[in-house]
Amino acid sequence: MTVKQGERLDDLLGRPGKIIQSDDVFSFSLDAVLLAEFVWVPIQKGKLVDLCAGTGAIPLFLSYRTKGTVTGVEIQPRLVDMANRSIAINELDERLHIVEGDVKTAASRLGHARYDVVTCNPPYFLANETSLRNQNEHHTIARHEVLCTLEDCIRSASQLVKPGGKVAFVHRPERLLDILTLMRAYRIEPKRMQLVYPKQGRDANTLLIEGSKDGKAGLTILPPFIVYEEDDTYTSDMRAILDA
Amino acid sequence: MTVKQGERLDDLLGRPGKIIQSDDVFSFSLDAVLLAEFVWVPIQKGKLVDLCAGTGAIPLFLSYRTKGTVTGVEIQPRLVDMANRSIAINELDERLHIVEGDVKTAASRLGHARYDVVTCNPPYFLANETSLRNQNEHHTIARHEVLCTLEDCIRSASQLVKPGGKVAFVHRPERLLDILTLMRAYRIEPKRMQLVYPKQGRDANTLLIEGSKDGKAGLTILPPFIVYEEDDTYTSDMRAILDA
Repeated sequence: MTVKQGERLDDLLGRPGKIIQSDDVFSFSLDAVLLAEFVWVPIQKGKLVDLCAGTGAIPLFLSYRTKGTVTGVEIQPRLVDMANRSIAINELDERLHIVEGDVKTAASRLGHARYDVVTCNPPYFLANETSLRNQNEHHTIARHEVLCTLEDCIRSASQLVKPGGKVAFVHRPERLLDILTLMRAYRIEPKRMQLVYPKQGRDANTLLIEGSKDGKAGLTILPPFIVYEEDDTYTSDMRAILDA
Repeated sequence: MTVKQGERLDDLLGRPGKIIQSDDVFSFSLDAVLLAEFVWVPIQKGKLVDLCAGTGAIPLFLSYRTKGTVTGVEIQPRLVDMANRSIAINELDERLHIVEGDVKTAASRLGHARYDVVTCNPPYFLANETSLRNQNEHHTIARHEVLCTLEDCIRSASQLVKPGGKVAFVHRPERLLDILTLMRAYRIEPKRMQLVYPKQGRDANTLLIEGSKDGKAGLTILPPFIVYEEDDTYTSDMRAILDA
């Protein structure tokens, strides 16, 4: 029995695969697929890591873009279990695996400088942003920096990735300054950035950024990504991602 | 005689005013009007400074948005002379004035912490980006960091502006990391940012950013500003600025 009580088998936004989710834990958001589509990936082979992997959405989305292996790191045992069952359902056991572990010690476990790509959709809110804290511990850990800060994620990513390898994050635009400063501090030079806007004329609500370990300075800001048209239908950019 | 030989009297992009320009020196670009429209200004009164004022384009554009005074600082005597003659032609002598001087010592001359707003369209290229250096000294000084670096501009702006006052820059997106880091280092907290794209689907080519002296952390990224439609006509956003 792969889907347990209180869980459901959801679609992977247009991909043929499925993902086990539950109202008890954090469900993947659009940000997961945006990051998985934004990041550079090696196509035929390679080693990728996804930090703060949750129920495995980013590894699953990445599996449609690369034939390499993807290792997810997730601290909550319940999510690790759900993610590995999703991987089994999708028959991706050969290439995808989620390990239970702390982001802060991921490199001592998985190895230093051995990965081509590291992705991370970290908790978005500071531990002390209490007004936004959820009651449920699973949600709180996924959304707030209680077990892992942005700096922990960036330090760990920098340890895991090879020289010249790519590290990509999705986060809130409010944290842009922190992300850029920490990336440079941990020798991940920011190279590509894209801002996501809910609609034309609205402020950005999501930030995608990729850096290169020990890369040369020089940031490119990609075209804006807009999710919805005025009439609340998806834009053609968004439909292209859903139909990828 | 207000317009000298080799000079011409150009339009101020849809505004009734005029500006003296010449092929011998750097002509104002779209970036000047974008910055003048982007920056917060006090409407009825106030004191503004424009660093690297050139021929006075930003002070002139600002005069349509504020009834306050605008002091420009420009190191090249020829440009100062042109700018002040343009101001006279527009009968703005009461409110606008360009002084000849070095950005680096502007605060000792104009006063510390006395200004509501500081704008700056600094030289975009590093002194050593020689492949892009122009032959003409006037152009080189305007476009390259030979007499004044980005750090000089940010330090000087921070000295000039009041606590809570605004400082706004226009620059190349490639320098985003440097701008953000230097702004924070000189206690100008980045608060509003807008990216300018030549067309839909193209990378950003211009960055507008405003910070607040000793402001609280928290950056808003405004909607993307796109200059041209696919058919090379101006977008409605751009037309709104030209008809302001």
